[in-house]
Amino acid sequence: MADLKLPSRSEDFSEWYNQLVLRAELADYAPVRGCMIVRPYGWALWENITAQLDRRFKATGHVNAAFPLLIPQSFISKEQSHVAGFSPELAVVTHGGGEKLEEPLVIRPTSETIIGHAYAKWIQSYRDLPVLINQWNSVVRWELRTKLFLRTLEFFWQEGHTAHATYEEAEAETRQMLDIYTDFAMNEAAVPVIPGRKSSSERFAGADATYSIEAMMGDGKALQAGTSHNLGQNFAKAFEIRYLDQAGALQHCWTTSWGLSTRFIGAIIMVHGDDQGLILPPRLAPHQVVIVPIFKTDEEKALVFEAAKKIREQLVKADVRVKVDEREGQSPGFKFNDWEMRGVPLRMEIGPKDVAKGSVVLARRDRPGKEGKSFVSQEGIVESVQQLLIEIQKALFDRALAFREAHTFEPKNFDEFRQVVETGFARSFWCGDTKCEEQIKEATKATLRCIPIEQPGGSGPCIFCGQASKETAIFGKAY
Amino acid sequence: MADLKLPSRSEDFSEWYNQLVLRAELADYAPVRGCMIVRPYGWALWENITAQLDRRFKATGHVNAAFPLLIPQSFISKEQSHVAGFSPELAVVTHGGGEKLEEPLVIRPTSETIIGHAYAKWIQSYRDLPVLINQWNSVVRWELRTKLFLRTLEFFWQEGHTAHATYEEAEAETRQMLDIYTDFAMNEAAVPVIPGRKSSSERFAGADATYSIEAMMGDGKALQAGTSHNLGQNFAKAFEIRYLDQAGALQHCWTTSWGLSTRFIGAIIMVHGDDQGLILPPRLAPHQVVIVPIFKTDEEKALVFEAAKKIREQLVKADVRVKVDEREGQSPGFKFNDWEMRGVPLRMEIGPKDVAKGSVVLARRDRPGKEGKSFVSQEGIVESVQQLLIEIQKALFDRALAFREAHTFEPKNFDEFRQVVETGFARSFWCGDTKCEEQIKEATKATLRCIPIEQPGGSGPCIFCGQASKETAIFGKAY
Repeated sequence: MADLKLPSRSEDFSEWYNQLVLRAELADYAPVRGCMIVRPYGWALWENITAQLDRRFKATGHVNAAFPLLIPQSFISKEQSHVAGFSPELAVVTHGGGEKLEEPLVIRPTSETIIGHAYAKWIQSYRDLPVLINQWNSVVRWELRTKLFLRTLEFFWQEGHTAHATYEEAEAETRQMLDIYTDFAMNEAAVPVIPGRKSSSERFAGADATYSIEAMMGDGKALQAGTSHNLGQNFAKAFEIRYLDQAGALQHCWTTSWGLSTRFIGAIIMVHGDDQGLILPPRLAPHQVVIVPIFKTDEEKALVFEAAKKIREQLVKADVRVKVDEREGQSPGFKFNDWEMRGVPLRMEIGPKDVAKGSVVLARRDRPGKEGKSFVSQEGIVESVQQLLIEIQKALFDRALAFREAHTFEPKNFDEFRQVVETGFARSFWCGDTKCEEQIKEATKATLRCIPIEQPGGSGPCIFCGQASKETAIFGKAY
Repeated sequence: MADLKLPSRSEDFSEWYNQLVLRAELADYAPVRGCMIVRPYGWALWENITAQLDRRFKATGHVNAAFPLLIPQSFISKEQSHVAGFSPELAVVTHGGGEKLEEPLVIRPTSETIIGHAYAKWIQSYRDLPVLINQWNSVVRWELRTKLFLRTLEFFWQEGHTAHATYEEAEAETRQMLDIYTDFAMNEAAVPVIPGRKSSSERFAGADATYSIEAMMGDGKALQAGTSHNLGQNFAKAFEIRYLDQAGALQHCWTTSWGLSTRFIGAIIMVHGDDQGLILPPRLAPHQVVIVPIFKTDEEKALVFEAAKKIREQLVKADVRVKVDEREGQSPGFKFNDWEMRGVPLRMEIGPKDVAKGSVVLARRDRPGKEGKSFVSQEGIVESVQQLLIEIQKALFDRALAFREAHTFEPKNFDEFRQVVETGFARSFWCGDTKCEEQIKEATKATLRCIPIEQPGGSGPCIFCGQASKETAIFGKAY
């Protein structure tokens, strides 16, 4: 399918995205409306994402576990805001083993309730705290409008659930996980994100505070790319998660939850991609280097394949993810386009002349044409490749950051605000009143993405009502 | 809970198992009947299992993907034997997003149907073959009698699904995966297994041939620990999975599927455990070594902790999974029992005298008392530990194999057969007739576990009907 041209990214961003996801074989539509199949190439990307996150979770003392998929329907109703938020989105199992169930079960839309139930049983004393558990799974929410990776009925994610003795510890955990998501996004995915606090109207159903990382997509719109919630004692009270403190008094725990999903793959596509297709950040790309052998005769083929194999072995040894494209019956040009579309950061070409000269051609995905090509000696090829991968990773981040900065505005008044949110983010003082937030949304369709952790200080007039305000917020149209 | 005594393994194997799973915090009961929570210690064991299997799958060219949880109910009916096998066990979603669904959805009991549907779409030509995909997920089967890990409504597993151009390739794949399961069981889990073919009555619903690995538990009963199915063209025909061959003719594919589940954790518990609790094979144990510091004064504590930390660092560097038990307010004796119950292969004790002498005490979990204790110098501690872990791994395998051999019989007649299947396996010639198999089951409750790949050759009388038979089969009572 690599020979079909993608829709232009600048002209029809949405259709470019939809077709690219299918053609690059990242995902496909499932027979059930709104569900997705993550194909091997997309799943390999997700596996690299999970490995990098999991490493960070474990380094901060978290362990993984698995809680059941099926939750008694009554559980969802135990926390007041939680039921209001999730009950319209539930998938309900009414029959099992050929019989009608006494109590319907729901497929988890998220696991605070069933995990709360377990924690109530497991936690007795302050000695049992903190409990720091994460799980990798899928959840189901009955969404009406769906788009591959960004919003599907079933999606894949991790959900962390922790319990603590004090508010302070829970808040520190919530912020620590926000930091981990920020670090992951910046340093692994090359996606610059803004970590911040959600306004009360955008909080998770059942949280006292929700933090998120927000990223700007290539069309100037915002994507919430990970969230971390301080759940206060809301779930602890609903599920009786209690502990005996050191003085022997019974206390409710303080809990948190935090999640990052396959949605992030959507962010990677929409932040880095171009008209030719995906551009994957080297640290997460399933193949960091693809070697395309170039030959005409069988003799040349043998020569070139031997050289390719040797280089491949050296790269594998150095933990570089490399693939030799050995497909028969496809021209090098076809292969170039195909791997370009699939976003492999670095292409290596080897022909008979290169073999003779002991060199190879390296072509950077992020710099099309001659500018991104270099002739490199086969001596020290591992170092050359590793160096280029680091450069590409940095270049992707720098470009995405420059784009975001060029599309982030500080409008002087609400008329300017209206205009700038059509193409990017507005950063404006906001009074904190939900009514202002609602009216801004009604007038512009832009939502309050977050109140960034980093604040300019000082004060200024609320962009909508003019009241003196201490914090700025990021507004934008969102996915 | 380590101070409570477990039920005796020899007196009440079943209750010993149930309580051990809970006390070692491998798993817990979920609020929904028959569902299980895999707790962090159990999940860490499963993560090590998945890593070892996944490595083998990838080394043989397989890739991972994720197919949806929800399957249209009509899909299950498309393959005749499949629907007969699975329809009594389905969990059915009838409502989504507050509305009744037009067509009910089922939660996957296994994914042949939905993957078949996808393969029909993806596979066009012989160039697209073979397709070698695996997925790690959970499935739901509405079981009536459940037991943690062994049989639960939801369980965790991997399911591989491949498509090939010829019968021979599909059969080779089926057998390759059986070999991989065998290799994993023997070399990672130290569980001796018998790879073999299932009789037609024990085949997977929709398969032409089913192979399995069968293990003997500590009570002499059999556990099917992994299966690999040659599905022939059954699913290819039901879902129209077709390809254009090199001559341009449309052909149906040949498909396979193969799976290994959290059930395997049950096998590890029941093969290696003893009255004190779990004994985990070093190659899969979440903690291979636990260091218990022994001290009285604060001065001693500082000294001992420093030494423990140094050793810990050396072991971590050498990729040994080590934990220092720093729990306050628990005696060393409590900690010894606790880690014994949790099956950590090697315990290291360090007290002030050990620090002074530059040595440590190492205690093997598989050899209780003095026999398993050694005093080892802190110099070269990494090598000593690694060497012992290898020895323990081997000792566990040898012991399990010796047990199985001591409990595998070749009864001379059906009266002897009746007796021996009360305590172990019977290996007997069998005529191949399903009627004999059924009557054996009725008379003894023993089932035909498998027809081993390795056969003695020659022929003999069927253990039930006396007819001359060419193959021997393993019979036993099964979990």
